[in-house]
Amino acid sequence: MSIKADWVAVDWGSLSLRAWAMDAEGQDLATTSLDQGTEKLSQTAFEATLCGSISPWLVDGQTDVIACGMVGSQNGWFETPYVLAPCKPLSKLVKAPSTDPRLNVQIIAGISQAHPADVMHGEETQIAGFQKLNPNWDGVICLPGNHTKWVQMSAGEIVSFQTFMTGEMFALLSTSSILRRSVAGKDWDQSAFDQAVDEAISRPESIAARLFGLRAEHLLNNQPTATARSRLSGLLIGAELAAAKPYWLGQSLAIIGPKTISDGYATALAAQHAPVTRTDTKQMTLTGLKVAYSHYKERQ
Amino acid sequence: MSIKADWVAVDWGSLSLRAWAMDAEGQDLATTSLDQGTEKLSQTAFEATLCGSISPWLVDGQTDVIACGMVGSQNGWFETPYVLAPCKPLSKLVKAPSTDPRLNVQIIAGISQAHPADVMHGEETQIAGFQKLNPNWDGVICLPGNHTKWVQMSAGEIVSFQTFMTGEMFALLSTSSILRRSVAGKDWDQSAFDQAVDEAISRPESIAARLFGLRAEHLLNNQPTATARSRLSGLLIGAELAAAKPYWLGQSLAIIGPKTISDGYATALAAQHAPVTRTDTKQMTLTGLKVAYSHYKERQ
Repeated sequence: MSIKADWVAVDWGSLSLRAWAMDAEGQDLATTSLDQGTEKLSQTAFEATLCGSISPWLVDGQTDVIACGMVGSQNGWFETPYVLAPCKPLSKLVKAPSTDPRLNVQIIAGISQAHPADVMHGEETQIAGFQKLNPNWDGVICLPGNHTKWVQMSAGEIVSFQTFMTGEMFALLSTSSILRRSVAGKDWDQSAFDQAVDEAISRPESIAARLFGLRAEHLLNNQPTATARSRLSGLLIGAELAAAKPYWLGQSLAIIGPKTISDGYATALAAQHAPVTRTDTKQMTLTGLKVAYSHYKERQ
Repeated sequence: MSIKADWVAVDWGSLSLRAWAMDAEGQDLATTSLDQGTEKLSQTAFEATLCGSISPWLVDGQTDVIACGMVGSQNGWFETPYVLAPCKPLSKLVKAPSTDPRLNVQIIAGISQAHPADVMHGEETQIAGFQKLNPNWDGVICLPGNHTKWVQMSAGEIVSFQTFMTGEMFALLSTSSILRRSVAGKDWDQSAFDQAVDEAISRPESIAARLFGLRAEHLLNNQPTATARSRLSGLLIGAELAAAKPYWLGQSLAIIGPKTISDGYATALAAQHAPVTRTDTKQMTLTGLKVAYSHYKERQ
């Protein structure tokens, strides 16, 4: 017997699409994921990609689809208008221009900030999931990733936020720069990471001077690639922590992010005597999508 | 009548090869360049590439070739042993393993520094050219490029140096990152550059927080790409100047580098009340290669 969805939850980021078949009680019955992120798709390819992914779950008539992520950005399916912070994380749903009569696709609008200019797409849904599971929580949520976000929450609202390109910088430097051979592999040297974080936090201005040293230490002293890789990560995360200090110093802190990258942030923050609550990204996202769907139904 | 070389001068960097046919009086009779930099060549391709480039100039018997640059690095034709600083810029020539009996290829050894670990390949030759044209000059030479070097000179020796990956970071961020659409084109906004340099020098720790803002200002406020591009350059050069302050504060300063990138450094330094002497890269390189050749002949 095949699975039929009461509604479909979708997390559509720059690198991948994940969908869940949901029942009327908010239980996920099935999930599917494919590497058709928004970066790979032209604007006209979104609807067909979504249909191809979820059509086995569709029933007769129309099925509601709630989607979050870069799908609602300028380079996504279509650009939803931003909601200006301060605001609740799930303030607006916008209907996607789908032509398939079986689909009613509602996209969660991204959030913008005027000064300093900033935007988010998808993190607001994870934050809403966190709020649902941690009612009345005030503090700062860090969402590590390609573009790490630091988000100040108060009284259920996103008060302010700040984006850092740390993850993307690490990816570029470790795969496409002169450093790539010196930081190859996946091995890890925790003490090299810890020391680099410490250096970068205490002397952030020196970071620009230390990057090429990873190459030179390799050439002259055969520094192991695991050490160099961990130092690169530590220098970049340390520089971010130096700049993000107003967000984490003396605050209640939670991290929502994939385990590997969150480990780095949690360790670095712990060394600064800033303990954090760790959470599961997928659970936060799905919970947030469920909250968005219940809001949507209430308004019908 | 075809040109025949008494000897051949070669500048072989990561992106290109340039060769000059030289006469016995040290005049360049002809030049050729091709985009066969060391990054494009496998180790076995160097000799054939060189021959193909200079063979019209070769006379009967053997011709001396003096080469500088990444050709003598680990990813070049072969790795010359480093000369450890402090040292004269042109301390050692190493014979390349060429098999063509018409060639005697001598490669100028790169220079290394123990603490902090650092290396250079090619800049030492430009520095030697500068010294030849400015005898008894003491001070700091800045060589902007993909990997900008700051070199402290005293009594004819390279005392210490420091490499910054600023040029490569700009290239990666402007062509391969989320910022690429926001900084597209070649236009320039001088006041945006100046302001970004100033911000980064006075608050270098904030740089990590400002990069994504270039994207957000584009999305939210239609910031012109020329402004964003100039700000990106200014933030990166400003961060470098903050870290390199011990090299330029209160020093005699000279810049050897291509015009476009040197303009940025010279403007930024002038705003910090640090005037610089500008020079022509090609002239410094060729002069340095001539000095190396005359050293070589003296030792025969």
